[in-house]
Amino acid sequence: MPAALALKPLSPPKRRLMGPGPSDVSPRVLQAMATPLVGHLDPAFLQIMDEIRAMLRAVMKTANELTFALSATGSAGMEACVVNLIEPGDEIVIGVNGVFGTRMCDVAERAGARVHRVEAPWGEIITPEAIAGALNHCRPKAVAVVHAETSTGVRTPLEEIGGLARQAGALFLVDAVTSLAGIDLRVDEWGIDALYSGTQKCLSCPPGLSPVTFSVRAVEAMSRRRSKCQSWYLDSALLRSYWGQERAYHHTAPITMNYALHEALRIVLEEGLDARFARHRRVHERLRDALEAMGFSFLVAPEHRLPQLNAVRVPEGIDEAAARRRLLEEFGIEIGGGLGALRGKIWRIGLMGESATGEHVDSLLDALRRVL
Amino acid sequence: MPAALALKPLSPPKRRLMGPGPSDVSPRVLQAMATPLVGHLDPAFLQIMDEIRAMLRAVMKTANELTFALSATGSAGMEACVVNLIEPGDEIVIGVNGVFGTRMCDVAERAGARVHRVEAPWGEIITPEAIAGALNHCRPKAVAVVHAETSTGVRTPLEEIGGLARQAGALFLVDAVTSLAGIDLRVDEWGIDALYSGTQKCLSCPPGLSPVTFSVRAVEAMSRRRSKCQSWYLDSALLRSYWGQERAYHHTAPITMNYALHEALRIVLEEGLDARFARHRRVHERLRDALEAMGFSFLVAPEHRLPQLNAVRVPEGIDEAAARRRLLEEFGIEIGGGLGALRGKIWRIGLMGESATGEHVDSLLDALRRVL
Repeated sequence: MPAALALKPLSPPKRRLMGPGPSDVSPRVLQAMATPLVGHLDPAFLQIMDEIRAMLRAVMKTANELTFALSATGSAGMEACVVNLIEPGDEIVIGVNGVFGTRMCDVAERAGARVHRVEAPWGEIITPEAIAGALNHCRPKAVAVVHAETSTGVRTPLEEIGGLARQAGALFLVDAVTSLAGIDLRVDEWGIDALYSGTQKCLSCPPGLSPVTFSVRAVEAMSRRRSKCQSWYLDSALLRSYWGQERAYHHTAPITMNYALHEALRIVLEEGLDARFARHRRVHERLRDALEAMGFSFLVAPEHRLPQLNAVRVPEGIDEAAARRRLLEEFGIEIGGGLGALRGKIWRIGLMGESATGEHVDSLLDALRRVL
Repeated sequence: MPAALALKPLSPPKRRLMGPGPSDVSPRVLQAMATPLVGHLDPAFLQIMDEIRAMLRAVMKTANELTFALSATGSAGMEACVVNLIEPGDEIVIGVNGVFGTRMCDVAERAGARVHRVEAPWGEIITPEAIAGALNHCRPKAVAVVHAETSTGVRTPLEEIGGLARQAGALFLVDAVTSLAGIDLRVDEWGIDALYSGTQKCLSCPPGLSPVTFSVRAVEAMSRRRSKCQSWYLDSALLRSYWGQERAYHHTAPITMNYALHEALRIVLEEGLDARFARHRRVHERLRDALEAMGFSFLVAPEHRLPQLNAVRVPEGIDEAAARRRLLEEFGIEIGGGLGALRGKIWRIGLMGESATGEHVDSLLDALRRVL
């Protein structure tokens, strides 16, 4: 072994994760990951997969058969939804009000889609009116919006947009990476046909998997494709046989990440979704009241704010990167900076899952007062 | 919470993993996964990423700058190598002597490649002569072979094929999912331009990441692409900025899986590659001698056998699935069955990483004698 590689064991510093994700992880989930592995085709693991699917359906409020945890992170979930629904030449309407809508346009263009962007200023919602306007001028295969824009802290209401997509004969695709298990989300009731999320936000599980679900309409549309899905790894037809009764070998599922997700979902369902949403709201209000009292202002109008992702303007004259570094190094608290045009202008304070506690809020406020 | 979802905590049975992967995982690696998380852009995590890259280069025997752990399993590593090297209309020569060469053809066709298959019977190697023959009739962008065919237990020698690819002006793409850290593999010396592996084989880390490396020639070829990579998630240009000095946010790396890989690589380098290869050989010979004494025969000729993946013919008159089930349920030992045309005809006995011990061999032999 080269001397330069005589590396020490891992000893990462202790952090409170209050950025845009990952969030803090429960000791129960960490312990689940220390469980010795079984094989990915072991009957014991197949049962764990079934239990994960059942719990995901409950958390997503859906009866969709094709519901599972994709073996990659949330960004791959976005790509999976797009490349399974879209074929070269298909039209898609995408709401763009932050980094993740922008990203979806890039992903869709790489899949050969003709993309119609419905733009809104960063920090504002995508309105049903704007979507309706776009639908007057095209015949898209899908309408896509980001439920919770992690780059801005905006919650775009979905129900009405889902109805518009349905009327236009389009599938409704939703990014729920930061919303799932933090705010209300009703896949079936809101007419969502394809949805992806991530594990490292309000599920408080480490990053590494992407929960996804596809409606019967989406599955029918996929079965009418003229061409194979461009991605073998993300092909829902192959994944369906792997996660379904056939158990057809596709890839090797990340066993340990699925152990973690199993435990994280148990914690979510033990708490109950309504109680969990209420906790996120309550903790957000505690943070908001204190920050406003300190003179901070929010990027997003009150009625469109995500409780779990608080975008606040950095006060004039503050070197925001230096302040964030002090929070991290002196107080062990991670918060996020702005992305794109908001770089240097906002902080993104996450209160997600295990990180949505009064103690988190108070320790951040205390540290902020000392840093500023 | 629905009553039906009042799920018990995880308690998977104890297994000895002696199939085609995953392999047993060291308690040190399990413990690393119970480490609380830092953020994916935390300086502490960036250092862990750098250490992983350095250790991967040592294990792969390469100086390639573009060496990292892709945030998905080995099958996504295959897709990443293909879609980054290949554009629609490009030609590729692929050696097909098992499931994984077959899969690579599918992946390449989905990327728009014109695929030239060089076929060999399952259980035999891809010969340099066969590759040379194909290169007389096309001008491929890449030549691809599977170093260690997990479906058959065959080791295809790479050095000569690498030379042929270079002479033909083609990039040399290698599947090293099952070979890395189990048998000798020399990326730079053998002229390999793109290589992917998995964590759950001879690295003895849980599945979930795919170590990949690209040569300078491969990076130059990618920089001359006429079109964007069809996959956003797997686009090496974006991943290079994330894993490189820019640290440009791309996706959220699976923190915990990287903790695991860090510890698994430390274990590999502590043992030393030569000692590790010798251990795999020694344990294979112990298994082989005993199985041959029991009357078993191997699918693969002695000079082409992988020590870490032993494909043996199932004796006449044995219900192989029932026997495997008894090994699993009564003895807690997992071995693999055959895939494709070899279904029902062979067993695949893995001796990979932590599962390559005399104790594993002896307990399997003991159990086999009682089951048969």
